[in-house]
Amino acid sequence: MAEYDLVGIGNALVDVAAHVEDAFLAAQGLAKGSMSLVDAAQSRALYDRMPPGIESSGGSCGNTMAGFASLGGKGAYIGKVKDDQLGAVFRHDLRSIGVDFPTPAAAHGAATGSCLVLVTPDAERTMCTYLGAASELSPGDVEADVIERTRVVYMEGYLFDPPAAQRAFVKAADLAHAAGRKVAITLSDGFCVDRHRTAFRALVEDHTDILFANEDEILSLYQVDEFDAALQLARGHCEIACLTRSEKGSVILSGDEVHVIDAVKVDRVVDTTGAGDQYAAGFLYGYTQGMDLATSGRIASIAAAEIVSHNGARPEADLAKLVAEALP
Amino acid sequence: MAEYDLVGIGNALVDVAAHVEDAFLAAQGLAKGSMSLVDAAQSRALYDRMPPGIESSGGSCGNTMAGFASLGGKGAYIGKVKDDQLGAVFRHDLRSIGVDFPTPAAAHGAATGSCLVLVTPDAERTMCTYLGAASELSPGDVEADVIERTRVVYMEGYLFDPPAAQRAFVKAADLAHAAGRKVAITLSDGFCVDRHRTAFRALVEDHTDILFANEDEILSLYQVDEFDAALQLARGHCEIACLTRSEKGSVILSGDEVHVIDAVKVDRVVDTTGAGDQYAAGFLYGYTQGMDLATSGRIASIAAAEIVSHNGARPEADLAKLVAEALP
Repeated sequence: MAEYDLVGIGNALVDVAAHVEDAFLAAQGLAKGSMSLVDAAQSRALYDRMPPGIESSGGSCGNTMAGFASLGGKGAYIGKVKDDQLGAVFRHDLRSIGVDFPTPAAAHGAATGSCLVLVTPDAERTMCTYLGAASELSPGDVEADVIERTRVVYMEGYLFDPPAAQRAFVKAADLAHAAGRKVAITLSDGFCVDRHRTAFRALVEDHTDILFANEDEILSLYQVDEFDAALQLARGHCEIACLTRSEKGSVILSGDEVHVIDAVKVDRVVDTTGAGDQYAAGFLYGYTQGMDLATSGRIASIAAAEIVSHNGARPEADLAKLVAEALP
Repeated sequence: MAEYDLVGIGNALVDVAAHVEDAFLAAQGLAKGSMSLVDAAQSRALYDRMPPGIESSGGSCGNTMAGFASLGGKGAYIGKVKDDQLGAVFRHDLRSIGVDFPTPAAAHGAATGSCLVLVTPDAERTMCTYLGAASELSPGDVEADVIERTRVVYMEGYLFDPPAAQRAFVKAADLAHAAGRKVAITLSDGFCVDRHRTAFRALVEDHTDILFANEDEILSLYQVDEFDAALQLARGHCEIACLTRSEKGSVILSGDEVHVIDAVKVDRVVDTTGAGDQYAAGFLYGYTQGMDLATSGRIASIAAAEIVSHNGARPEADLAKLVAEALP
């Protein structure tokens, strides 16, 4: 009997968000909407030039686990922080909502990772990530005991950036499959897919049961120009593929089954960051509770709609309550 | 010629804000709307029980200096953080908006101070402050050189809580007066006035040129029940007294001069925290630019209205622009 519905593995990051003008991005040589990896010195230099910020726990997979807990799922998180103040913040913010966090903090080495999030007046976000301690996640942090006690292991594509984490990724997938568990991954980011396309394709074909990708990411993975072409290629590569398309909704593929799920309408889209993270949380909640694919997709859309209606990438509303109201 | 318009002295704190139900406050034995001082262990224990938080730079006087800079004033801040991550956040958030921060960080001792802010569904805030490194502010941190180069020294009443800071307070007032500068204080909080009434009265009568107090605070200072009775007592005790009354506006007294200033209407009051801090920022901006009392009061009301229209205690809008539009 599994103790966890979901174990997430990701880069543990604290977000530092600030409002800037487009001219600021241009002056720093940053492409709007991109996620760049930066080193400690670059991160420090950009922070020195940035306006005042707001700090909050982030990391794609951490955000998913927060949504999963808000839906009522039982989860654990594997990721590396340092034993410092921002590491304590990250740990608190997961544990306080009931997500277990068995990975010990690093006593030495780089500080807890951070993501400088620059929000322009059009509500677009440009991110510069300093992985810090997250880089030190290694296969040793993936404990067989934890993986074997979960229904699904979920991993973010961003883990392909730190080299040791790639090996942790494969170890977790192997352990999960050996124990008869499912492996879910999200491609995370089109640029991330560009950086690691070959490795991603092998992973999707050889290790993945449930794939999450948005339109950019799936086009990049298969190097095609049309969504439908990517959809045809994704069919058959994994047990389930969830392809998200923002306001156009999502398509869920599984063998011969195809579901086209509408996006849940929101009055005003405030900030699209984290929509994919919450889509995954919602789908995996339904899936791990034994619901059918279409219902799981609807829960995914409800969770994604909540997150785009406010600033920040972790839910503010009680997602379980929203789902209970929408799907009585 | 003064280099700074305003030098603020205060408790340097990072806010950690979270949403809770009323039952949570009751379970922790906290009175809604209060500001309690807690030690490191109490702060840690409360944090462990709190939901996920959002971190941002705070401290009453730090908030005032942020508003003052947004209005276009040149300022410096004196306050104590530790050389840790949250101390770096506090320093960054002032420096990045052009506020000088000459006080060196403490290399040893307590961590940077924090204020756990519990927001209930009625938008009220209940605060538990762990002063941490802020307690270590001492007279040695008040440099004559900085005080002599400013037009006005502004100090928060909360400084009366850490003992060494009280002496720093008096030292700063003496230095300022010896250099022909003005001394402004805010009483900060009714409970704080209760804790230190005798010392506050002496300070107001002997050392203060410009007094800021809200209705609760001025009633507590003079131990009277009626606003008008407090007003009569406040007249003549300082050169200028600014008495604020939330949506009823404010009254500014100076010798025989009396101005009754209306509050600036806001569509929706989201969070009243920091209204007093921004009122002081606005008034002192007008005052240090040589404007008359009524105009300074109007700027104060504009700054206070901006802050109550959103969450958080530092301005989101460009206050200089708001003032230019309202007072062409």
